[in-house]
Amino acid sequence: MSKKIKTAIVPTRSDDYPEWYQQVVKASDLAEKSPVRGCMVIKPWGYAVWENIRNILDEMFKATGVKNAYFPLFIPLSFLEKEAEHVEGFAKECAVVTHHRLEKSGQGGLIPAGELNEPLVVRPTSETIIGDSFSKWVTSYRDLPILINQWANVVRWEMRTRIFLRTSEFLWQEGHTAHATEEEARERTRLMLELYAEFAEKYLAMPVIKGCKTPAERFPGAIDTMCIEAMMQDKKALQAGTSHFLGQNFARSSGIVFQSAREQEEFAWTTSWGVSTRLIGGLIMTHSDDDGLVLPPKIASAHVVLLPIFRKPEEKAMVMEFTENLAKELGRIVYYSRRIEVEIDDREIGGARGWDWIKKGIPLRVEIGPRDIAQNSLFVGRRDCGHREKISINREEFVQTIHNILDEIQTNLFDRALAFQKNNTVEIDAKKEFYHFFTPGNVDRPEIHGGFALSHWCGSENCESQIKEDLSVTIRSIPQDAEKERGKCIFCGSPAGQRVVFAKAY
Amino acid sequence: MSKKIKTAIVPTRSDDYPEWYQQVVKASDLAEKSPVRGCMVIKPWGYAVWENIRNILDEMFKATGVKNAYFPLFIPLSFLEKEAEHVEGFAKECAVVTHHRLEKSGQGGLIPAGELNEPLVVRPTSETIIGDSFSKWVTSYRDLPILINQWANVVRWEMRTRIFLRTSEFLWQEGHTAHATEEEARERTRLMLELYAEFAEKYLAMPVIKGCKTPAERFPGAIDTMCIEAMMQDKKALQAGTSHFLGQNFARSSGIVFQSAREQEEFAWTTSWGVSTRLIGGLIMTHSDDDGLVLPPKIASAHVVLLPIFRKPEEKAMVMEFTENLAKELGRIVYYSRRIEVEIDDREIGGARGWDWIKKGIPLRVEIGPRDIAQNSLFVGRRDCGHREKISINREEFVQTIHNILDEIQTNLFDRALAFQKNNTVEIDAKKEFYHFFTPGNVDRPEIHGGFALSHWCGSENCESQIKEDLSVTIRSIPQDAEKERGKCIFCGSPAGQRVVFAKAY
Repeated sequence: MSKKIKTAIVPTRSDDYPEWYQQVVKASDLAEKSPVRGCMVIKPWGYAVWENIRNILDEMFKATGVKNAYFPLFIPLSFLEKEAEHVEGFAKECAVVTHHRLEKSGQGGLIPAGELNEPLVVRPTSETIIGDSFSKWVTSYRDLPILINQWANVVRWEMRTRIFLRTSEFLWQEGHTAHATEEEARERTRLMLELYAEFAEKYLAMPVIKGCKTPAERFPGAIDTMCIEAMMQDKKALQAGTSHFLGQNFARSSGIVFQSAREQEEFAWTTSWGVSTRLIGGLIMTHSDDDGLVLPPKIASAHVVLLPIFRKPEEKAMVMEFTENLAKELGRIVYYSRRIEVEIDDREIGGARGWDWIKKGIPLRVEIGPRDIAQNSLFVGRRDCGHREKISINREEFVQTIHNILDEIQTNLFDRALAFQKNNTVEIDAKKEFYHFFTPGNVDRPEIHGGFALSHWCGSENCESQIKEDLSVTIRSIPQDAEKERGKCIFCGSPAGQRVVFAKAY
Repeated sequence: MSKKIKTAIVPTRSDDYPEWYQQVVKASDLAEKSPVRGCMVIKPWGYAVWENIRNILDEMFKATGVKNAYFPLFIPLSFLEKEAEHVEGFAKECAVVTHHRLEKSGQGGLIPAGELNEPLVVRPTSETIIGDSFSKWVTSYRDLPILINQWANVVRWEMRTRIFLRTSEFLWQEGHTAHATEEEARERTRLMLELYAEFAEKYLAMPVIKGCKTPAERFPGAIDTMCIEAMMQDKKALQAGTSHFLGQNFARSSGIVFQSAREQEEFAWTTSWGVSTRLIGGLIMTHSDDDGLVLPPKIASAHVVLLPIFRKPEEKAMVMEFTENLAKELGRIVYYSRRIEVEIDDREIGGARGWDWIKKGIPLRVEIGPRDIAQNSLFVGRRDCGHREKISINREEFVQTIHNILDEIQTNLFDRALAFQKNNTVEIDAKKEFYHFFTPGNVDRPEIHGGFALSHWCGSENCESQIKEDLSVTIRSIPQDAEKERGKCIFCGSPAGQRVVFAKAY
């Protein structure tokens, strides 16, 4: 047996991936469980990542003409019921408000009182309540398109929850648009998918596959659901963002009617699209290692931590002055439309200090001691390198090149994740091999066991559901950029027009 | 009778102030009522104001060391019950979640199912749920202070609602801090009040009075509630922001205990402070006029609208090109840490177009026609001036001085509001005069009837509640910057140490 390397996170990814995930979240101080079932507390280090995600996406949305607004948290039950498939999809996981005050009970405790005439559902998504507004805002084709987004909390009462990945309450954005023509609505659906893919790859350094969901995996009420899917380090898929073409379904149920240029009464064509705090879960599982979180610089809570080192009290003032001056200088540099964020950690706790920041995933650690200052240099560690690989850099050179160093880390993380995804994606044409690939324990070539299987599918819901039942494997995506290579369905052998992505998923 | 001037808003302020308010909200397209009782839809023009408020305050908070985080929407009933005064204060207006799914009823409709073991209250404020987290985060005095803020939605089930001023759901920020000493917590309480006052005056152009609430008007569970109060144009007071010193009350109920430097177990000292979308209501009622909304430039949804004018089709291309170039140039100018936001309105709807933007309160309207272009000039209207007072300005001069013009508008709005507040604030020392001042109809000097009365109060809750009962007038504030002038209580004549602010209020 090979010698076990000591890691900052126990267990390691290979020992117990789900538990490793929980330990990374804890050690990095991103978030924690709350006393409210399935809800999380997003701590400052985690919320800063969400703020960066929000700010970048918000700017990207606005550049396409989208405006922000805010709609009620509560949805009357009768609204939700207007679209049959939609309510069916969410009925099992709704938090329902039934009372509007508390009253002393006979035993002295408080009990719900003031029963509402109609129960209110805490929004699981807002198509129906926003559709109601749209129906009032639209009269003529001149009022279209309407391009709206809201940043909000939503609630889906999940029975099995995991921080960031699946929580009863989560934060997200939901875009809702209405158009005069089908073509324009379809174009908006695609545009937002492209935007999400660009964001995931460029900012989260998370390679994604763009495609469509099968009818069985669609958003309840949608005609088409497009998605970006990413591969986590346990080779499972994570749906990282979705963009839905809703046809006229919600326009019909909400009464979004307009008079066309030809003076006809027509239903509008609508779309909706969203990403959530789940992205942070994806981020963690894409880049982190057995020493903790690894944050891509472009969305990191902070870019660099300065670690002043002083042994004698008389050194402290000098080292701190040098450190604070450096912090000020770095803080003036703009890196992708926000200033470089610098942390100074002057706690006198020895080696634990550096490890704290490794576990928190900060891209750069800079040690500053009297000897470094004498040489006008800094001792720099990169989070994407081993924790011992630290190099001495001239102070001015560091300030001048920090932009490039951060870019290098960003690129490096993306390249690694892309290589991992490619190395674990295989074309499979034989049913036996397919089952073998997805059966735990059946490992002859472990380096490509599990992952994404590119196989043919005939389009039958039966084949899809049998595979799901047998292997817990689903069709993640009908990829949009793949060539239309004809072949035989991996399950039934019937002719099929292109390969789809099969995988286990979060 | 004087000739009635035609106004864009009907009724005018003097005809029917509450209805004028509703009509301004509607005409400006800031927000609208939703089908959910007491909840509002904040439309893009209104949400942009909130985004500006949020961005500016967020930066101010962070400069004092505050970090953002996010806590659960739901509060277990048992948490709320921990602080007796607190739950008493909110019990009458709580939205209560009792079920977690929907099920088909015998009649075919959906009904709440899956009853929760413990009801969950939709947060009316988060002291108790955040206190629970703090109790886990704090062990030693070294962990203090904790300085946290969250931007969130909250729900208080109000029976009588009015858009922005009092809604069942509203958006706000709530800051929560924990400290090792009473002095430090009191200092933070004052600091945040100063910050709110600076924000209100500098950005909202809304003059405020800083002070403390009387015990009867305190936040449920607080030791001290500090507040900023502003005067609306109907001379009523609006509480625009509050900062609470909570003593050890919530630390005791949530168990926020730390080991002090002297190795003693001690309860922390906590504060909380917040402002909400109510500020937008205050903004409307401070500056708007009988032609609609007036937005202070520093928080306006957009700064300037360009109105291209062309009569002949052949003029259109030329005018639009000139307009778009101007928009680009203006859009590069930074005004108080955001770029100048420019709208172009090329709808061919005649005079209604200019009026739309007057009603929306945009600070500057710029008309651009072929004759203006020939003279390289622009025809500029300021929202703080009469709608006919438009002046011709050279194009380059406008671009170079727009910063100053916006500053002038901002200052002008503040000065007007301050003059109004001062003109309607009077020192009253006789009970009869006091009652006369606050009794509608008893108008001998209408120009100073109603408003803020600076009168002495002995400190007795009885005098305070009698005045409230008789006149619907409350003590808005024990002002902090006023001199300690001795006198006699306006109600009972007992000795009193300083004047307080009496007013009717929202």
